[in-house]
Amino acid sequence: AGADPTVPLPDRASIFADLTPAELRAVRDFLMGCPELGLSPSRGGTLAQNTLFLVELLPPKKRLALRHLDEGGPAPRRQARAVVFFGGQAEPNVTEFAVGPLPRPSSYRPLRFKGRRRVPFAARPMTQLEYELLHRALVQATEPLYRLLRDATGFWYHNCTDRCLTFSDIAPRGLASGERRSWFMLQRFVEGYFLHPVGLEILINHRDPDPHRWAIQRLWYNGQYFSSPQELAERYEQGRVAVARLSDHASQLLFSTYVPRGRFTTGTPTDVHGAKVCEPQGRRYRLRGNRLEYGGWSLAFRLRSSSGLQLFDLRFNEERVAYEVSVQEAIAFYGGDTPAAMQTKYIDAGWGMGSVTYELAPGIDCPEVATYLDAHHLYDADGPVRFARAICIFELPTGVPLRRHFNSNFQGGYHFYAGLEGHALVLRTTSTVYNYDYIWDFLLYPNGVMEAKVHATGFIHATFYTPQGQRYGSRVQSHVLGNLHTHLVHYKVDLDIAGTGNSFETMDLSFENIPNPWSPDARVVQPWLHRQPRRSERRAAFPLGQALPRYLLFSNPRQRNRWGHARSYRIQHSSHAGRVLPRGWREERGISWGRWGSGWGSRQQALPGASRGAGVGGGEASCRPVAR
Amino acid sequence: AGADPTVPLPDRASIFADLTPAELRAVRDFLMGCPELGLSPSRGGTLAQNTLFLVELLPPKKRLALRHLDEGGPAPRRQARAVVFFGGQAEPNVTEFAVGPLPRPSSYRPLRFKGRRRVPFAARPMTQLEYELLHRALVQATEPLYRLLRDATGFWYHNCTDRCLTFSDIAPRGLASGERRSWFMLQRFVEGYFLHPVGLEILINHRDPDPHRWAIQRLWYNGQYFSSPQELAERYEQGRVAVARLSDHASQLLFSTYVPRGRFTTGTPTDVHGAKVCEPQGRRYRLRGNRLEYGGWSLAFRLRSSSGLQLFDLRFNEERVAYEVSVQEAIAFYGGDTPAAMQTKYIDAGWGMGSVTYELAPGIDCPEVATYLDAHHLYDADGPVRFARAICIFELPTGVPLRRHFNSNFQGGYHFYAGLEGHALVLRTTSTVYNYDYIWDFLLYPNGVMEAKVHATGFIHATFYTPQGQRYGSRVQSHVLGNLHTHLVHYKVDLDIAGTGNSFETMDLSFENIPNPWSPDARVVQPWLHRQPRRSERRAAFPLGQALPRYLLFSNPRQRNRWGHARSYRIQHSSHAGRVLPRGWREERGISWGRWGSGWGSRQQALPGASRGAGVGGGEASCRPVAR
Ligand SMILES: [Ca+2]
Ligand SMILES: [Ca+2]
Ligand SMILES: [Ca+2]
Ligand SMILES: [Ca+2]
Ligand SMILES: [Cu+2]
Ligand SMILES: [Cu+2]
Repeated sequence: AGADPTVPLPDRASIFADLTPAELRAVRDFLMGCPELGLSPSRGGTLAQNTLFLVELLPPKKRLALRHLDEGGPAPRRQARAVVFFGGQAEPNVTEFAVGPLPRPSSYRPLRFKGRRRVPFAARPMTQLEYELLHRALVQATEPLYRLLRDATGFWYHNCTDRCLTFSDIAPRGLASGERRSWFMLQRFVEGYFLHPVGLEILINHRDPDPHRWAIQRLWYNGQYFSSPQELAERYEQGRVAVARLSDHASQLLFSTYVPRGRFTTGTPTDVHGAKVCEPQGRRYRLRGNRLEYGGWSLAFRLRSSSGLQLFDLRFNEERVAYEVSVQEAIAFYGGDTPAAMQTKYIDAGWGMGSVTYELAPGIDCPEVATYLDAHHLYDADGPVRFARAICIFELPTGVPLRRHFNSNFQGGYHFYAGLEGHALVLRTTSTVYNYDYIWDFLLYPNGVMEAKVHATGFIHATFYTPQGQRYGSRVQSHVLGNLHTHLVHYKVDLDIAGTGNSFETMDLSFENIPNPWSPDARVVQPWLHRQPRRSERRAAFPLGQALPRYLLFSNPRQRNRWGHARSYRIQHSSHAGRVLPRGWREERGISWGRWGSGWGSRQQALPGASRGAGVGGGEASCRPVAR
Repeated sequence: AGADPTVPLPDRASIFADLTPAELRAVRDFLMGCPELGLSPSRGGTLAQNTLFLVELLPPKKRLALRHLDEGGPAPRRQARAVVFFGGQAEPNVTEFAVGPLPRPSSYRPLRFKGRRRVPFAARPMTQLEYELLHRALVQATEPLYRLLRDATGFWYHNCTDRCLTFSDIAPRGLASGERRSWFMLQRFVEGYFLHPVGLEILINHRDPDPHRWAIQRLWYNGQYFSSPQELAERYEQGRVAVARLSDHASQLLFSTYVPRGRFTTGTPTDVHGAKVCEPQGRRYRLRGNRLEYGGWSLAFRLRSSSGLQLFDLRFNEERVAYEVSVQEAIAFYGGDTPAAMQTKYIDAGWGMGSVTYELAPGIDCPEVATYLDAHHLYDADGPVRFARAICIFELPTGVPLRRHFNSNFQGGYHFYAGLEGHALVLRTTSTVYNYDYIWDFLLYPNGVMEAKVHATGFIHATFYTPQGQRYGSRVQSHVLGNLHTHLVHYKVDLDIAGTGNSFETMDLSFENIPNPWSPDARVVQPWLHRQPRRSERRAAFPLGQALPRYLLFSNPRQRNRWGHARSYRIQHSSHAGRVLPRGWREERGISWGRWGSGWGSRQQALPGASRGAGVGGGEASCRPVAR
């Protein structure tokens, strides 16, 4: 069995390893073979059938994992998490299952979370099939608008060949729980189509599993609302519509591409590559299965299809620092003047944020010398799909010494000089959630610092420019508004500093005014270290947009170093983001984690909303998991 | 004259170029030759004589520089700034002079700043000569303490050979304006002596130019105060002093060095170099004299001996973005339990922050492939001194793409992919102000972003550990306290966005609650862009420690881009520092810039405190320029 690729690696990290393609297939085959589930292949079917949507690792319970890692207990049973869309039943719903044991599953059981109802079918993520059906609905909706679209944009949607329109769909899909109606923004389908809205937005109700019952509810064109495509078409023919005539696409094309253009006036070379990361003496990190080692660091990692990178069992020189550090969720909430802009509140784990991990280009997305790893996702597909070069790992020269000191002798020489080169190991993946590419980095520094970092790049989510739109953003092209929005990202950080029983305290500087001990008439005003234990969760949560205490410390007060200080780790927060919505407003309630710059609780890892709500089936009301 | 090295380079940047060694010598020779100044060589003399302390470029007035740069006017007269210590007169003082024209100076005139009195002699920076005299005073002070020091530490100060003590001196040098009395902290003189305080601190009054009139005013040893060395020595002999016996230095030596020790448990290689910055296709920046060009960027730079790196005439694609961006000042204010710790409020420009630009080590302080430049300072020396490799310039691969997008076709392929490698050009110098090494970076990004960044490294300013000291820091060794302190850094940023007449506004998100235009019963709560012009300086200053507005924008409202937006630059602030002292407290008044996270004023560049106070002679009360 040693050569059987379905057998977990003989490393303690393997209990956190993602499912192999063989394991994914084994789970699929097992569930497809259970007649009571009544599963059909998802490709080419209808929405009104039962399909397997997602299979991924179900990580072991922390208690069992620690017993295995720390006390030599047995490896926890390896299990899968499977998400099934029950679309073919009287009461359609979405159900999550635990399936095991791997590699040869023999049973499943529904996963229920305390206090959470069954996930309604209308709250499910989008699928390729539903997009295909929506495409057909848009063909019908835009056929009457052919003349308007052709005249105004030179492009059309139905029956097009090279001058096609495409669309971006908006979430949330409604104004109240249980709705499933989405705004679609039409765009010229050219390179960088996100920046080519044509001014037409269409609201389709697609709640019913039967697409024949779908309905076009509203249209918005260049500032005006219409109740049907026919109404808009008629008014256009009557000349009663303000038409936004876009210039010919050829001249418009270039601005939205990455094609190099323009030139720098300085004459410095731009036709050669710039500085590169290279490894003249080879690699200084080690990768064994899903265990990564670098300097004192050792950790297990996985790429969860639903939410992204997860680190487990982080240790520095054998001592555990954190049990888990994971990407949980990313959201982007917008403001604007068009219905699509007003409505946009993307909650990206619902779009399979961990599954859209497309190829990293060596030399651009990561250095040429990086190690590239593939990922396999079974997400809205009938089997595992390979994502080549989904992850990269490399050592980065930070360009600044970690420490240095030049000790002058003040005679033109020195007593001593010493310096340490600055390096960090980078573990990276991306999530291209339609227009955005999130770049997810974890950085390991040789001095015991770990950094989680995210960049948002790609294209902005832009809407059609209207004069009133300036209240909500900046005009970036003749017909394009870059809408204001806030990105918030949620990480789960389960630190275990010298054990699992940690305390949290903050430290700030306060000032004191005391007599000067060496000059009786004088006084000393000076700072002192104001430590505040934060024993309750309420005292341990800090609202976004207010200045955080200077130091946030996790400690084990029962484990002290030789100078008497509690073993501690500091959390350093670097963000200038504020709230995305006023507290308590409808859509804000579904992302209550977004209220806090930092929230700590002893129960944090037991809260489903924090530990697993990022996947399919969390949330409520119109902030249910959304998809585009 | 073309080959004469004293002739400025024929580039417009040359008006900002630092003085050449020949120019420095010419200024020195000219002033030394003026009998009315009565200058003596500074080496080997006394404090009671007139000496030339500093010579550096006196940059041209902005108005004249712009007339030259933008309107083809004549190059402004090239002038030097010279600082003279008039110690040999009835009313000793410090005077600054403008000296010109270069390269062959023929006249000088005192530089007077509105509202500022003549700088008193007691407020001058320290010199090598004064340190030498203080060393002799400490020899006298410690001779009676020989037995105590030898017994307790194994080291002594006077007449020592290999087991010597050294000292750190503390600023400010007194409690009121006009004083010059400093605390000296004794340390074992081993590698990393900053971490080896022995528990003895001595207060010396060295105000009088005649060192015979200096006096030892106080001593502190291990928690107790004494009025003279004799008192401490007697009490020690009587067994009435609590002695802090330090362990033998051999076992104590290692911890304060950079000598590699310990090992990582993972077994990843540590005996080879890690990733490096390399330039397989050569350099993409150009250096001509003091003009640096990279991508669209072009700027002039200098390394001002008194304060550090200064950039002038920053342009992106020929358009000026800023007239000047300069390091002005760096301070570090402490709290603690010993008199030295309580008193420490370093104001580093007074320590010649721009002159302590020691050698950068290739491969550690900057990549091997960097360009290294020498600097020449005439600062507390009788002629120009060459500082080899004081500046480095290199292109850094940031390790993350500047932009990228992978546009999936959702069929396993893609519509388009594009990405741009991430790079920045780094211009770096360091200031080793005794224990600290500031690393000063300016980064130029190809997209028009410029970043100013400072790292503080080297050794902490540590004091002798006492149990009460824990209120003010962390114990880091048996007898060492790492004291809490705050670093603040002051940059002058004179943006000129599309001209000199700029406005300042802030932008934040506000929320609105409006009827939903496509669903009559519903409402939309969404953010909008709240722009606030900041017309008065009071409304344009933001106290440290409070959350800044989200966006700080400098604009030229009369220059608009083709979409109607005012040409603008955003300032992005990244710091979690708070106030160093309560507002208005004695020493806080001397660094009033430190109250503000950002302060903008149309008059900013005309305020001496902002534009030149960082040099010799600024400030007042006990927060006069200080030196160690
Ligand atoms: Ca499918
Ligand atoms: Ca924990
Ligand atoms: Ca001198
Ligand atoms: Ca300006
Ligand atoms: Cu964004
Ligand atoms: Cu510091």
